[in-house]
Amino acid sequence: MGYTKKVMLPVTEVDLTAVKYDPLQIEAPHITGLTLKLFIKLVEMPLVGSLIIGYLKKQNKMNVILRDTVIPEPPMFRPEFPPQEPESGVVFLKEDGKSEDRVETATRCLPQYDPANNRSSSDSTTFCYWKIRDYAYSYRQKLTTPSMVAENVICAIEEFGNKKPPTPLLISFDAEDVRKQAAASTQRFEEGKPLSILDGIFVAIKDDIDCYPHPSKGGSTWFHEVRKVTKDAVSVSRLRSCGVILVGKANMHEMGMGTTGVNPNYGTARNPHDLERYTGGSSSGPAAIVASGICSAALGTDGGGSIRIPSSLCGVVGLKTTYGRTDIRGALCDGGTVEIVGPIASNVEDIMLIYATILGSSPADKISLHPSVTCLPDLSSHETSSLTGSLRLGKYTEWFNDVFSPDISNKCEDALTRFSETHGCKVLEIVIPELDQMRAAHVVSIGSEATASLTPDLQDGKGTRLTLDSRINFALFNSFTASDYVAAQRLRRRIMYYHMEIFKNVDVIVTPTTGMTAPVIPKSALKLGESNMKVTANLMRFIIAANLLGLPAISVPVGYDKQGLPIGLQIIGRPWGEATILRLAAAFEAQRVETKRPMSYFDTLEGK
Amino acid sequence: MGYTKKVMLPVTEVDLTAVKYDPLQIEAPHITGLTLKLFIKLVEMPLVGSLIIGYLKKQNKMNVILRDTVIPEPPMFRPEFPPQEPESGVVFLKEDGKSEDRVETATRCLPQYDPANNRSSSDSTTFCYWKIRDYAYSYRQKLTTPSMVAENVICAIEEFGNKKPPTPLLISFDAEDVRKQAAASTQRFEEGKPLSILDGIFVAIKDDIDCYPHPSKGGSTWFHEVRKVTKDAVSVSRLRSCGVILVGKANMHEMGMGTTGVNPNYGTARNPHDLERYTGGSSSGPAAIVASGICSAALGTDGGGSIRIPSSLCGVVGLKTTYGRTDIRGALCDGGTVEIVGPIASNVEDIMLIYATILGSSPADKISLHPSVTCLPDLSSHETSSLTGSLRLGKYTEWFNDVFSPDISNKCEDALTRFSETHGCKVLEIVIPELDQMRAAHVVSIGSEATASLTPDLQDGKGTRLTLDSRINFALFNSFTASDYVAAQRLRRRIMYYHMEIFKNVDVIVTPTTGMTAPVIPKSALKLGESNMKVTANLMRFIIAANLLGLPAISVPVGYDKQGLPIGLQIIGRPWGEATILRLAAAFEAQRVETKRPMSYFDTLEGK
Repeated sequence: MGYTKKVMLPVTEVDLTAVKYDPLQIEAPHITGLTLKLFIKLVEMPLVGSLIIGYLKKQNKMNVILRDTVIPEPPMFRPEFPPQEPESGVVFLKEDGKSEDRVETATRCLPQYDPANNRSSSDSTTFCYWKIRDYAYSYRQKLTTPSMVAENVICAIEEFGNKKPPTPLLISFDAEDVRKQAAASTQRFEEGKPLSILDGIFVAIKDDIDCYPHPSKGGSTWFHEVRKVTKDAVSVSRLRSCGVILVGKANMHEMGMGTTGVNPNYGTARNPHDLERYTGGSSSGPAAIVASGICSAALGTDGGGSIRIPSSLCGVVGLKTTYGRTDIRGALCDGGTVEIVGPIASNVEDIMLIYATILGSSPADKISLHPSVTCLPDLSSHETSSLTGSLRLGKYTEWFNDVFSPDISNKCEDALTRFSETHGCKVLEIVIPELDQMRAAHVVSIGSEATASLTPDLQDGKGTRLTLDSRINFALFNSFTASDYVAAQRLRRRIMYYHMEIFKNVDVIVTPTTGMTAPVIPKSALKLGESNMKVTANLMRFIIAANLLGLPAISVPVGYDKQGLPIGLQIIGRPWGEATILRLAAAFEAQRVETKRPMSYFDTLEGK
Repeated sequence: MGYTKKVMLPVTEVDLTAVKYDPLQIEAPHITGLTLKLFIKLVEMPLVGSLIIGYLKKQNKMNVILRDTVIPEPPMFRPEFPPQEPESGVVFLKEDGKSEDRVETATRCLPQYDPANNRSSSDSTTFCYWKIRDYAYSYRQKLTTPSMVAENVICAIEEFGNKKPPTPLLISFDAEDVRKQAAASTQRFEEGKPLSILDGIFVAIKDDIDCYPHPSKGGSTWFHEVRKVTKDAVSVSRLRSCGVILVGKANMHEMGMGTTGVNPNYGTARNPHDLERYTGGSSSGPAAIVASGICSAALGTDGGGSIRIPSSLCGVVGLKTTYGRTDIRGALCDGGTVEIVGPIASNVEDIMLIYATILGSSPADKISLHPSVTCLPDLSSHETSSLTGSLRLGKYTEWFNDVFSPDISNKCEDALTRFSETHGCKVLEIVIPELDQMRAAHVVSIGSEATASLTPDLQDGKGTRLTLDSRINFALFNSFTASDYVAAQRLRRRIMYYHMEIFKNVDVIVTPTTGMTAPVIPKSALKLGESNMKVTANLMRFIIAANLLGLPAISVPVGYDKQGLPIGLQIIGRPWGEATILRLAAAFEAQRVETKRPMSYFDTLEGK
């Protein structure tokens, strides 16, 4: 068959009633260990390599989508949002104010605190994590001190790091630095002058976000050699000024270029619910350190699900903020169009506190994105329930059910049913066309932007020091032409149009967060890594819209599969609509029936 | 020598006092005729082609700039402007109002009209063109009618088209359609109900802007086959609603991908000041039809000087508007980050009238660019002169003087000296670093965006139906990677920073419009075209900032070189600063000492 040019209809003329769901199919080999080593040799050979990559791209329709098709829309290079209606029942936060003041305002948005509720029994079915307010209460009641907690934290981190094979939660950690921060916090409490409700709260920072004086390696063996850290990233400095104790740099999938969290450089972080399984990635360490109870929260980055995927697989809450809502300066990927800095925590109220602390657009984004006001849902008032009841949840059922393990869609469906029964919410059927195009546009965007950042170093010989799966990724990304990149941006405008149309009828879109629960770690992957595009596709299938379109999205745990592995529900909001998805996430959390103590759980407050 | 990675300093740390001017050098062969035919065969061969292109790119430092250098700034994919101070002495135009109302407002901005001034003697030294208000006066005084003028216009267009070799000003023209429009206009005058001051004014539309029912070929032989015209472009419909008579589609460099205007498909438009010379391009026909007196104005597009270059070479005025100020929907390149629709006319007041008519951002640009208010300088009041005197003109003297023919810098310098003497303006020395980077970023942007639009058609076999110089261009553009594209956008942010810093101290930047006057047309180029990157570089050397950064810029004639060829001065304004550059252009025009009747001039009002 010869070449066939395709012409897309203008997006405004597409008949949504005629859209058929096309189940996701990914054609790529699963390769680990020595086979991977051989494969990368072939892929990096001048001609053979481009043939292999070309074949894989063809199998996955990349060229049909990007090169053979006339896309009538002009490119949208970054998310461009139409003006948004203000949300109801919210409390406004001063983006330009002090982060201490914002977290103070955020605390007033929470339901009244009752110390009697803190930590229900830790039996296996009704487990719940200590919240930030539990620590804050204990510190203020002098039940414990940050220094006492620090010893437990240090002990737990070292225990993880000393396992065989090593499964480090942090890849840069300095016990003395943690003790010093804790001592300073303890002293502030002694003087009755804590900096904020976050004073003495332990937080981990993903290795691709600067946290001085730690190096930022991005999970690689060399990135700190080419890029020195001289100060905190903006989001980290906001935490620090609230008295947060920064425990170190959390493990991650190398350069954020994967969704399992495998890391042959430093060892792979393990899932606290099953140590034989992946945490998900790329924010593997951040999710695991929160899920194991060692830190109250962690900062991650999310350019293709890197916060939401590990949060879902580890049974915690992860918030992808609106593009540009947080200031990405000081993160390794500070030049992309899909990535943000956001929080991971064990529960929604802690997410709200950390989010309130770190938010605030960069000066450049203030000019170009014109961010909407920042606000939080007011969960302290009694109107909360009626406001939740008025929200309309959009669900694309065929997509929702197209998962690798049916437990996922069943549990998410159960949660939705219970939710609409409780609150009287409407769940409305929606259709999202061009999911394949969305995926292609995303991989070209994130891949090209990452490559552009690293090209001078990769050419300078650092490329061969990457792990094998990163090298396969970069071989793929290097095959994208400038014209592919522009075509991807044309698709971005189409996909944005569809979503903005959907958001005329619904307030949020709900999906499972991932299409599979935590995958088993193949033994052969530990040393050399693995390339498994099918796992990647299963983990990412519901993730992309929030990255390509810059929408806020949150993953909230809703139960477990038959193996006892956590399942997450994803709530995708309107542009700048964090308050609404936080309100819903809190309501989903409140109705949760199953809660399970992770196998690998450290009680940092009580001591083990 | 091995690979050497370079690391740019963050743009805020660059020491501008240490910047050295680096004279522009372009390494590329000049190829015409059969040699060109052979060259394109080599360039389009799989391996040899990429070697040749690779060699040319290396010679011109493209890879050093884009691949070997760490650029610390995040990408800026489209011009992003900081908020601008309002301009002084201006009249506001309602962007969302009717174009008839805007042109009415614009008329009130002009100095009082005195019919005694219209058309000074047409001797060779004090020639001046009929202005729109001259036509309007003559129609209203019943000295002539649009139908009478139409016959002269038709006669002139046909005469140009019938020359051997053909030098068509228009490549789609329907005399009957012009007569019909003129008759309708004539009747409106008979009824005393002209639609606006533009009623009965003859305007040509560049072939890459839709003007129904004409096809839009973009100067090619096939583009109308793959893209049907169903309605006027937005800018054209605004003209039509004011009663403008649209004479047809003006000749252009194929796909806008060149600066000479050579067009082997339809014949090459000739420069009215010397028929052996190029008009410049890509808006060759628009500039020539205005310069020869046949039309009062024309619409062109400018993605890399395509309005300003031919305006300068043909001795007329051309306005590149701020990116997004005019609505590009209905132009072939409606997905780019550098191109705009703008007017060409024989004088500044006609530019003001046409600009007022066509302006108004697209709905998408209103969301993403947040355009500033639209306004015109109020030239009707006596304060004009003092306002002009308060403006500060920035000049980078080494760059200003780096021209192919010194007549250009001398004449521009004379004009500046006279100007500052008359008005008391300050001319301040400025420095613009990274001019090579600016050029690289621009060619990657415009080339990749054009390629993305055409890739499905080029792959579908249409590529071989392009002219040879277009094919060389596309071979170059196809070699750009997605990572090159992103790197170019990082450079865009740097260059924007430098310019915004400069604009803290000056109100405009002045340069010659081009580095050379109209080049001779090689005989061998007429049939097969030519590739002459040195001519291109000479024509484009002062052009790029306005495209890469989206700044408004105007070319205004200031005299002639020793061969009697026109020389243009370029005034580059702040973002959204059209009113200021129009005010200055009018003042430069008013002080002009030399005016010369073009060799090829038709008097459409009086008859020949």
